[in-house]
Amino acid sequence: MSEAKVNGDLLREREKCNFDLKELTHFIDGGEEATRNRREVEEMVIHVKEIQDEVPEEYLSHKEQYENAVRKACVLIDILKEHALRHSSFDAYKPTNMYRVQSMVKQVSPFILHMGMFVPTIFGQASADQQAEWLPKALSLQIIGTYAQTELGHGTFLRGLETTATYDPTTEEFVLHSPTLTSYKWWPGGLGHTANHCIVVAQLYSKGVCHGIHPFLVQIRDSETHMPKPGIKVGEIGPKLGFQTANNGFLGFDHFRIPRQNMFMKNAQVLKDGTYVKSKSTKLTYGTMMLIRVMIVSDAAYEISRAVTIATRYSAVRHQSQPKPGQPEPQILDYVTQQHKLFIGIATSHALRITGSWLWETYSKVTHDLDAGKLDQLPELHALACCLKAISSRDASAIVEQCRLACGGHGYMASSNFPTIYGSITATVTYEGEFTVLLLQTARYLLKAWKSALEGKVMTPTVAFMVNYQKTKPLWKNTPEGIISGFKAVAAGKSKEAYDAVISYENNGKDYEDAWNLASVQLVNASEAYCRAIICEMFWSEVQRHSVTMSRNVAAVLQQLAELYLIYWTLEKSGDLFEYSCVSKEDLAVLRRRYGELLALIRPNAVALVDAFDLRDEILQSTLGSYDGRVYERLMEEALKSPLNKEPVNQSFHKYLKPFMQKSKL
Amino acid sequence: MSEAKVNGDLLREREKCNFDLKELTHFIDGGEEATRNRREVEEMVIHVKEIQDEVPEEYLSHKEQYENAVRKACVLIDILKEHALRHSSFDAYKPTNMYRVQSMVKQVSPFILHMGMFVPTIFGQASADQQAEWLPKALSLQIIGTYAQTELGHGTFLRGLETTATYDPTTEEFVLHSPTLTSYKWWPGGLGHTANHCIVVAQLYSKGVCHGIHPFLVQIRDSETHMPKPGIKVGEIGPKLGFQTANNGFLGFDHFRIPRQNMFMKNAQVLKDGTYVKSKSTKLTYGTMMLIRVMIVSDAAYEISRAVTIATRYSAVRHQSQPKPGQPEPQILDYVTQQHKLFIGIATSHALRITGSWLWETYSKVTHDLDAGKLDQLPELHALACCLKAISSRDASAIVEQCRLACGGHGYMASSNFPTIYGSITATVTYEGEFTVLLLQTARYLLKAWKSALEGKVMTPTVAFMVNYQKTKPLWKNTPEGIISGFKAVAAGKSKEAYDAVISYENNGKDYEDAWNLASVQLVNASEAYCRAIICEMFWSEVQRHSVTMSRNVAAVLQQLAELYLIYWTLEKSGDLFEYSCVSKEDLAVLRRRYGELLALIRPNAVALVDAFDLRDEILQSTLGSYDGRVYERLMEEALKSPLNKEPVNQSFHKYLKPFMQKSKL
Repeated sequence: MSEAKVNGDLLREREKCNFDLKELTHFIDGGEEATRNRREVEEMVIHVKEIQDEVPEEYLSHKEQYENAVRKACVLIDILKEHALRHSSFDAYKPTNMYRVQSMVKQVSPFILHMGMFVPTIFGQASADQQAEWLPKALSLQIIGTYAQTELGHGTFLRGLETTATYDPTTEEFVLHSPTLTSYKWWPGGLGHTANHCIVVAQLYSKGVCHGIHPFLVQIRDSETHMPKPGIKVGEIGPKLGFQTANNGFLGFDHFRIPRQNMFMKNAQVLKDGTYVKSKSTKLTYGTMMLIRVMIVSDAAYEISRAVTIATRYSAVRHQSQPKPGQPEPQILDYVTQQHKLFIGIATSHALRITGSWLWETYSKVTHDLDAGKLDQLPELHALACCLKAISSRDASAIVEQCRLACGGHGYMASSNFPTIYGSITATVTYEGEFTVLLLQTARYLLKAWKSALEGKVMTPTVAFMVNYQKTKPLWKNTPEGIISGFKAVAAGKSKEAYDAVISYENNGKDYEDAWNLASVQLVNASEAYCRAIICEMFWSEVQRHSVTMSRNVAAVLQQLAELYLIYWTLEKSGDLFEYSCVSKEDLAVLRRRYGELLALIRPNAVALVDAFDLRDEILQSTLGSYDGRVYERLMEEALKSPLNKEPVNQSFHKYLKPFMQKSKL
Repeated sequence: MSEAKVNGDLLREREKCNFDLKELTHFIDGGEEATRNRREVEEMVIHVKEIQDEVPEEYLSHKEQYENAVRKACVLIDILKEHALRHSSFDAYKPTNMYRVQSMVKQVSPFILHMGMFVPTIFGQASADQQAEWLPKALSLQIIGTYAQTELGHGTFLRGLETTATYDPTTEEFVLHSPTLTSYKWWPGGLGHTANHCIVVAQLYSKGVCHGIHPFLVQIRDSETHMPKPGIKVGEIGPKLGFQTANNGFLGFDHFRIPRQNMFMKNAQVLKDGTYVKSKSTKLTYGTMMLIRVMIVSDAAYEISRAVTIATRYSAVRHQSQPKPGQPEPQILDYVTQQHKLFIGIATSHALRITGSWLWETYSKVTHDLDAGKLDQLPELHALACCLKAISSRDASAIVEQCRLACGGHGYMASSNFPTIYGSITATVTYEGEFTVLLLQTARYLLKAWKSALEGKVMTPTVAFMVNYQKTKPLWKNTPEGIISGFKAVAAGKSKEAYDAVISYENNGKDYEDAWNLASVQLVNASEAYCRAIICEMFWSEVQRHSVTMSRNVAAVLQQLAELYLIYWTLEKSGDLFEYSCVSKEDLAVLRRRYGELLALIRPNAVALVDAFDLRDEILQSTLGSYDGRVYERLMEEALKSPLNKEPVNQSFHKYLKPFMQKSKL
């Protein structure tokens, strides 16, 4: 790109950068080689003409959008497969690779669950024989699959699923059936009109006994004609807030038969005669779902980086208002209220990416240990994955909207790309475990931990702070470490109070479940506080750890962002800290001033900090956020693409408006 | 509607109602007659077949959506005009009437600014002669107008507008011109392809002097052919997060001439020779804009009532999870976390409606006094309208999203109607004065007020509490009145600290504007605290005032909601209250328990409380929220309307998927 065309304000902002931008990019990617690999894939995808839209998809009808998305998904997979053949280290099925590439294609792929759930479930839950048969077809896309778990009537509460798979030993088949309207599968991406195979989660019955939910591989459409198989009702569920082209579908069975071998047999099994062989651990089957939750933390960081890049660049280009008579209008990035809205976004992207990487490593370690039969770390990992998925998705949604609103009216334009980013990220608050339900899962762990602390037991690392809290309420210190201690005190104090509340309700005659429900607002708050303490500690300690190997100024900007994050949340949660720590009004006054200083310190590097995310224009897809800052030109260029603007007078004038106005004259 | 078809859970919920539902509806509408009038209009609109969509608009292309919206807008206006002829008391142009009716049509009308801004501006700013000429045409829709103020480069900061209107005394014309790309008008509803007239706000130049912005009436399209006039570039700005069919447009002028008489002359004037005659008060011209801000408070209440009706009914129908083994799955409305999400929505709708009505009365009184030359109440009204518009739109957006998320995945469906409601309400956070800018306007008023309090001057009613705060920090009382005092103390304390911060920065050598900027996060927080105190006091005191004329149980439910609102915000803002009042940890513990009790008290009436909003299915437009609670049936019925579901196999299979899968087999 020729620098000559870049907006003058952005040029000046980039000159102000006082740190090594490339070094920060490498840190974000996880190393120089990772940056190179990522760029190579992006470069390859970007130069494929077939994935560029002639008419922006927002102008197409729902049906046209879907057809266009199928076309592009096929092109994209071909490119990635070819690349994978040439680079054995590149894993096209690794969801994080898919995710970034997907942003460039803009439309969500109808194959999204083929990649994200169908293939991983075969890896994770099919027996060796089954893998040998199914994997080659799935990996090469001879068959297109999806994963059908959620039903019209049940989501996160898996035990409530109603679809049945009843074993018939006379034919050695399972009979899949949808006994009610609410038992229809609902939501799976690609299920509507794209997939011809489907993993179906159903209640397994054999010999008259229900053995709970199990996964089955089902061919739902004919390979040659794509017609739904007899006994199967399938279609798409209609438009949504986002994911328009994901082809989310519904699926119902009318006594539909599949061979016994189509039950996933790595863990539990049904023998020919109908004998049910139990899995060693019921927890093993949650693997794929936990994996997705772990990845959502990193996805949240990524979506924030997109939104905050757009908003920060726009804020450098946009000038508004005239506080000083006769002076030029300032860049809106110079308004402290704007810095307050944006810099926490930059900081949060780093915080969640770092926490997400740590969670990923923990997950890899724990699942590795699982294969060796060690299950003891699973509860803590489950508790962490639940609350981090919940809080990261919620925080990211809030920040994306904050970035959009910080761009004023123009942020409301589809061409800003904020509406699409929000549509994607807000969905993660609900899918793969609903926000509140997940926080209550973590709360169960916290109450057990508090009980263990009371009993003087050995505590696992992330809840060890409860032991200290029992002894003393820590002195407040206006340092990062002091703030982290404060958040741990809040987490401990809220866990204690929620625990006491449950017991108190029980003592007043409520049974445990009702007591739990009555205390549930407090329980949710305890989980959130625990999660915030984890993120704060992880962000600060990882930045400290890496600082020693970084150049001084890169370390400095990261430390500023980490400190900003800690103080931002101290001021947001001051009420909690007043209740559970020894913070004072004077401490807060000092932190408020420090917060203002940090905004001023970060300001000169703001554009460079978002440049370091290294998000190409093709990934940002935004008139407001492009590298060259040609905001107004792009807004107009995009508007002129509207089919309505192709003719000076729309036909509705002759059909409706003219007769209407003339009638009024009579 | 036959009761037999209503969902059993909803029937049982309605039996639990312990108050007179009709009485509450009348209270909400402002009297029994108002309810009757409203229903009559709704009844009339609903029975017009032409405004029903055969295919839901989400399936249409952008262009088709627009054409359909024009068609329906013409039909709707005809109905309303006819009704107005028969009922002299009905004012079709009253925006609140339009707003409700608009919900039934679903698509935003391309005439929205004709009604909302074009006609009111003629009323407010045209001279008597001009009104005589323009009003009959505008009111009868012989001409279709819009209001073009915002430009690509400038929104809330009006002085920055760049469009020029230069007076040419030789021809007695104004020459309208767009000197830059950023000076293009951008956003006006209906401007794209609908309006043939437009009120244009431009910088007035005469005799070489700029006199600031003034409004002009401009014909932009030919009456017969609808072609843009020579010298005018006009079109639509493209897709957005919402308001898809509003036909928002852009407009540029190339030395376009209009007669001198087309300048709005009620206030300022330009004489034939170019002499500029100033308006008596520059504040007079802000009337229309302030009116819209005042109305947004009530609109916010209305949109919340729609969202919370949908979410509450769905929560009564939806059963999920099984806390007690062997017991049926509870209605999700029985989960306390769900009550925590929804009941604040019910309460906030009442709070904002009541505050909005009070603001409306204040506005009417002040503008009446204005006509008599009294300007002294204008600053306080301006400060109130600014912060109430900002906070009500922001709170409403948050609550709508909270309601959507409380419905899990199904809330993400377009057929739930949450996406459209959110698209509408979140726009109000930005339009007619951006959120942060407005709060800073109010902050200017608060700092002046604090200075007056310091100087011992007589204070206007809504800031009189500052005088007391100077003397003593009030004792905390765990009563509604105590909480309201606490919020006033927060507002006073934050105003004081922001004031001190500005002075302190000035003392350290900053000029006033920079000091203001450095303190602006605190200034925004002061405004928000002031606004919250106003809403809390207004809600509580108005409920108390009306309680004496109400039946006991209606008064009781309203008092429960008002108390809930006060305690909810006390717990949310506990940090502020710790800093600026004498609240203690023990006080908060008591309030947390009381909050739980209130949720339990409101629970049995929850469905009845939303039924009392009296929002017809045609207004809710929601599969999840209909009166009969046939949630799952409607979800499926709506899905089956998808054009994709009209054929078992989409053409993309043959064009893309089949070749793609077969290639993989090779």
